[in-house]
Amino acid sequence: MNIAVIGYSGDPQQEPIKPLENIVFEVGKMIAKNNWILFSGGRNGVMEIVSKANKKFGGKSIGILPWEIEGNEYLDVSIKTGLDFSMRSYILVKSVDVVVSIGGEIGTGIEILGSYANKKPIILLKGTGGWTDRIQNILIEGKFLDNRKLSEIHIVDNLMDLENLLKKFERKL
Amino acid sequence: MNIAVIGYSGDPQQEPIKPLENIVFEVGKMIAKNNWILFSGGRNGVMEIVSKANKKFGGKSIGILPWEIEGNEYLDVSIKTGLDFSMRSYILVKSVDVVVSIGGEIGTGIEILGSYANKKPIILLKGTGGWTDRIQNILIEGKFLDNRKLSEIHIVDNLMDLENLLKKFERKL
Amino acid sequence: MNIAVIGYSGDPQQEPIKPLENIVFEVGKMIAKNNWILFSGGRNGVMEIVSKANKKFGGKSIGILPWEIEGNEYLDVSIKTGLDFSMRSYILVKSVDVVVSIGGEIGTGIEILGSYANKKPIILLKGTGGWTDRIQNILIEGKFLDNRKLSEIHIVDNLMDLENLLKKFERKL
Amino acid sequence: MNIAVIGYSGDPQQEPIKPLENIVFEVGKMIAKNNWILFSGGRNGVMEIVSKANKKFGGKSIGILPWEIEGNEYLDVSIKTGLDFSMRSYILVKSVDVVVSIGGEIGTGIEILGSYANKKPIILLKGTGGWTDRIQNILIEGKFLDNRKLSEIHIVDNLMDLENLLKKFERKL
Repeated sequence: MNIAVIGYSGDPQQEPIKPLENIVFEVGKMIAKNNWILFSGGRNGVMEIVSKANKKFGGKSIGILPWEIEGNEYLDVSIKTGLDFSMRSYILVKSVDVVVSIGGEIGTGIEILGSYANKKPIILLKGTGGWTDRIQNILIEGKFLDNRKLSEIHIVDNLMDLENLLKKFERKL
Repeated sequence: MNIAVIGYSGDPQQEPIKPLENIVFEVGKMIAKNNWILFSGGRNGVMEIVSKANKKFGGKSIGILPWEIEGNEYLDVSIKTGLDFSMRSYILVKSVDVVVSIGGEIGTGIEILGSYANKKPIILLKGTGGWTDRIQNILIEGKFLDNRKLSEIHIVDNLMDLENLLKKFERKL
Repeated sequence: MNIAVIGYSGDPQQEPIKPLENIVFEVGKMIAKNNWILFSGGRNGVMEIVSKANKKFGGKSIGILPWEIEGNEYLDVSIKTGLDFSMRSYILVKSVDVVVSIGGEIGTGIEILGSYANKKPIILLKGTGGWTDRIQNILIEGKFLDNRKLSEIHIVDNLMDLENLLKKFERKL
Repeated sequence: MNIAVIGYSGDPQQEPIKPLENIVFEVGKMIAKNNWILFSGGRNGVMEIVSKANKKFGGKSIGILPWEIEGNEYLDVSIKTGLDFSMRSYILVKSVDVVVSIGGEIGTGIEILGSYANKKPIILLKGTGGWTDRIQNILIEGKFLDNRKLSEIHIVDNLMDLENLLKKFERKL
């Protein structure tokens, strides 16, 4: 199963990422332990922490990069798209089975909407801030992003629920 | 001045587009009368009505199309992007000075966020439904889409205010 | 009819563009006089000269630009694609009815092959150098670029033949 | 080291691919044995045979796919680009260190030129037909595709020379 983890970019040692370090680390470890493949935007922030943890526990991670820039040092595969930041995000969400969202500024918002437009299930990690929490205020019937009901938005507030939900998706593949 | 008009796709004679027909028509006319250039996604729904009105009043309109599909009959220029629906929207918002949003499902939501990420001012036509109204519930300080404050979201509830605001943008170019 | 003119980028006052200035100017004038729409990559070199001439004679020209860079001053419409130099060339060739090639380095080579892959007829202005002449050495049956025969490559060596051929294409639209 | 293998698409059991089956198989095996990572366009023809061989010998292969289509069954990672056939080829060549070309129609021609434009070394497997052989007729100084000399085109006529050259590139990384 291919999983995209999306969220804040920026310096992992600074706000707003530092307080999320542990939870992001655990998500990367979880993906490795379950032999899922980690996809991300390949840069810093949440992307870097999750790939670092994933690699530490023997996982494989793939970065979908904007332009021709280099990714973080924990990627096993770097895809250099030649596209700008937002456009490359669509290749990320198209290539996975499910998307996990942790905090995030406008780029994460674009990825949440893009996942939905591409009919991919999205799991929001509640309480992590940014667009992950913001989007919860405008869900239709508590789980859709428009009237077409293209995919479901799921909300979890702890790592155990996240892992159980991901395993449920895996069984359905 | 280049203006993108975004909003619902679909049959112009059906809900939810039919009740917006007059207002969309007036926007297309306004753009023509002011000698602004109209950009849109080039397809049906709001895109078709606004181009039809624009053409009727002597304006020029440009459609930024997904894949290699043909646009509506009112376009003066059709740009065939070879990109999917969402990715082509980024070319639309990058190419204009300001974006006007009327109703809209997920594709419009993606265009609103994409406009902001590309630092383009966005004008929401209040009361037109869909993402144009939905996004108003999650604005930061009433006008931003994240903490980076990349561009401002403006809200107007009538055509006179829309025209005045557009003229203000024009003077600043 | 939408016509793409492709060829050398670079300083219009330098080799290898300067010796082609007159012929490129005449092509831009021809497109304006016939009320065809000029498409180009929107930058300097052949692109700039052809748009300058086109504008001088009342024509309309559209530039398909890489990244978010600004185009030359003679464009009526600038499409900012967010894509790299080569990828944006595919939007150029997809959006036109016929492609005219004058000289050119690797970018022009990519556009010639891309035009063929997108089933667009290509007219090579013989003797203008670069890829426009180079490609003539590897045509299959004197007019194809592979065994699929997706479109025809035409070779002309003067402006009168170019105009006649373009008019012939126009009648077939 | 990341290696792209490009060449004919189509039914692996038909001309012109069938006669190349052994050589393509050996290339896939070579990449696996050397622990290089195989990149391809992810579809049928040369792409399928090389991935099949690579997988059989324990290698990892990555397919850069057009639109949202599924790749062949031998891919470890499928990148769904949402881009058309030619545009997605640029993501392929940007993501690798070197490109190996075997036969091929126009899509392969586009990839050869795209590799050069992206400054990637290209190795042509001489005698395999199509664009791999055709391009040899128009090289400048026997190794360049234009006057900018962005990268070198190398020509080999057997697998031992191919492997030695690839190892030489690896040492330079």
